[in-house]
Amino acid sequence: MAICSAHTTTSLHSPCTTVSNTGFRQKQVIFFTSNRRSGRRHGGARTFQVSCSVEKPVVIGLAADSGCGKSTFMRRLTSVFGGAAEPPKGGNPDSNTLISDTTTVICLDDYHSLDRTGRKEKGVTALDPRANNFDLMYEQVKAIKEGQTIEKPIYNHVTGLLDPPEVITPPKIFVIEGLHPMFDERVRDLLDFSIYLDISDDVKFAWKIQRDMAERGHSLESIKASIEARKPDFDAYIDPQKQYADAVIEVLPTQLIPDDNEGKVLRVKLIMKEGVKRFNPVYLFDEGSSITWVPCGRKLTCSYPGIKFAYGPDSYFGHEVSVLEMDGQFDRLDELIYVESHLSNLSTKFYGEVTQQMLKHADFPGSNNGTGLFQTIVGLKIRDLYEQIVAERAGAPAEAAKV
Amino acid sequence: MAICSAHTTTSLHSPCTTVSNTGFRQKQVIFFTSNRRSGRRHGGARTFQVSCSVEKPVVIGLAADSGCGKSTFMRRLTSVFGGAAEPPKGGNPDSNTLISDTTTVICLDDYHSLDRTGRKEKGVTALDPRANNFDLMYEQVKAIKEGQTIEKPIYNHVTGLLDPPEVITPPKIFVIEGLHPMFDERVRDLLDFSIYLDISDDVKFAWKIQRDMAERGHSLESIKASIEARKPDFDAYIDPQKQYADAVIEVLPTQLIPDDNEGKVLRVKLIMKEGVKRFNPVYLFDEGSSITWVPCGRKLTCSYPGIKFAYGPDSYFGHEVSVLEMDGQFDRLDELIYVESHLSNLSTKFYGEVTQQMLKHADFPGSNNGTGLFQTIVGLKIRDLYEQIVAERAGAPAEAAKV
Repeated sequence: MAICSAHTTTSLHSPCTTVSNTGFRQKQVIFFTSNRRSGRRHGGARTFQVSCSVEKPVVIGLAADSGCGKSTFMRRLTSVFGGAAEPPKGGNPDSNTLISDTTTVICLDDYHSLDRTGRKEKGVTALDPRANNFDLMYEQVKAIKEGQTIEKPIYNHVTGLLDPPEVITPPKIFVIEGLHPMFDERVRDLLDFSIYLDISDDVKFAWKIQRDMAERGHSLESIKASIEARKPDFDAYIDPQKQYADAVIEVLPTQLIPDDNEGKVLRVKLIMKEGVKRFNPVYLFDEGSSITWVPCGRKLTCSYPGIKFAYGPDSYFGHEVSVLEMDGQFDRLDELIYVESHLSNLSTKFYGEVTQQMLKHADFPGSNNGTGLFQTIVGLKIRDLYEQIVAERAGAPAEAAKV
Repeated sequence: MAICSAHTTTSLHSPCTTVSNTGFRQKQVIFFTSNRRSGRRHGGARTFQVSCSVEKPVVIGLAADSGCGKSTFMRRLTSVFGGAAEPPKGGNPDSNTLISDTTTVICLDDYHSLDRTGRKEKGVTALDPRANNFDLMYEQVKAIKEGQTIEKPIYNHVTGLLDPPEVITPPKIFVIEGLHPMFDERVRDLLDFSIYLDISDDVKFAWKIQRDMAERGHSLESIKASIEARKPDFDAYIDPQKQYADAVIEVLPTQLIPDDNEGKVLRVKLIMKEGVKRFNPVYLFDEGSSITWVPCGRKLTCSYPGIKFAYGPDSYFGHEVSVLEMDGQFDRLDELIYVESHLSNLSTKFYGEVTQQMLKHADFPGSNNGTGLFQTIVGLKIRDLYEQIVAERAGAPAEAAKV
């Protein structure tokens, strides 16, 4: 019952129709047609013979606002599995998809039902469900989860148009990232694990100022206006998804520097839902207690403003959760390995794996703070969840044979 | 090189002069004479043959104000060594001394140079060094430490007079408790370990009200007046000793109940000096870091106001210290053993020994809060220190023989 990788045995950009080997199951390709002028699309299904059978992928949903570090997160996740994530080779250079040996990450912007012009005409933002085709999203995620190949649309962020589709074959792990992975109940129910990246307004504002004002020369007023314009739809359609997430990474301003508004030093919370199958929340020192921990002191000499951890049980949208929080940033490797050595349930395969992963990508944004640490931890958790599912599938027939 | 107990082989209330066995060393008895009318005393030394040789005792100093739980502490300490502490059998019923198999605890009030009348005449309090004979205190503690028997004065708390002396033979552990164990530099230098019980003014006041108003019918005004009258001498002569203590138990009002002034729920700190030979401070989770811990949550359901621990490095009178703090109280055994299981460097001989000790004396004051817990822990630390000294002494000749 080994899981084969579609990417190593088939061409990614053609449906697996050319070869039919004995023992391989029939597969469907879920495709779509689009009318680029009107922005209308139609979803449909046709049956193909596929060249290889893959296991049904584990499906992960990652929700966040645009420009909030989802791609960094995805690069950390695929790195945990050992491979680098790259855009599909030879396809549309503006494809939003990232593929590694184990993982395919698609961007849900590809399910925009309205292109930029269409949204302008109808007066809706990309955040608005009316600008997105949830029926097709559901059908295609469901098809992938069932092991079928799909022809997924591409939303071209450069042109603002809907480009011709690309073929996506079922990977081991299929990640849907974007604005609405948990918005539609049908899509939500397909997710084996879901994550919400929650950047607080203060931090978003500081980041946007940093990027748009310093790097792009926008005015403070125009930045404020663009945030304000976006906020009602964000609050109505994006933010409420966090209640469904199995894990939320919440990014807040530091509390170590009084009245800090630079958004450089961050306080990051990893909110982990309790009672989720195959997901054991990480804990600090004593599972279920409330803890604060300042590891700087006799053993580590952290520079100002230092590092502070907190851990404890809490309630989040009526769910019991465990929250791990890190305020401040790492100066050196010593601090990171020291912190790792005091966290439990990390789902690492060897001592120091979190630190090794963080060091490997020291140049990624957030590598010295809680965003990088918690993204890495969630990556390990997803690997663990995936391996549990594989083991269960491998174990199931054996169990049946015993009876 | 076994340490023999003087109490089991000799009568406590006569100097060991009657029997002289081969192999026993000559001992001195340091005695004193007193003039009960004038309150004057003279210290001196005479040589006696003693009946048994005892090792040089380990000397412990315990400083605290009157009525601040020293006797409870001493009962907890002697219990750690397995025996109950009792007044000397057949002696002065108003003796302030407590003796167990291993430990002799003397009260330094016995070194008052002025009796109650004398103090009144001279207008000095018992806290005033002028009311105390530090020369005799030094000579006798030194003599005991050198393995000599002493004739120690008795201050009769009932009559306020100086009673005829009692004979004290060197025990394994000799504890001097009272107002001034660390006041005189010569005495201080004799101490192998020193402890200061530091009850905050707020708690002292609450306790005094509870006892003197509720139980003895004193007026609030008279209680306030008596505390105020005592305070200048206390601040001048008693309080400064805490800077010399190896361990300080500080008792403060709770911070779990806003504006609490009942003094029933306590916040207790165990301040442990770093770098003290044979004393490894207790720590919580991670030595040298700053930690807070609320063990109530998923595992323990503590009733209001709960329990909160804190641990971390600090500075105390210019010394580096580690501080362990407990705010709140235990409801049940579960909580105590759970807390014990998360503390390190406790110097227990088996898992759960702290809890067992606390349960054995559940009726002692402070058994459900940090005073009892930290007194018990300090007791274990003293046992550990004693055993290290014994091991060193036993090891020393062997080491020498090797050379």
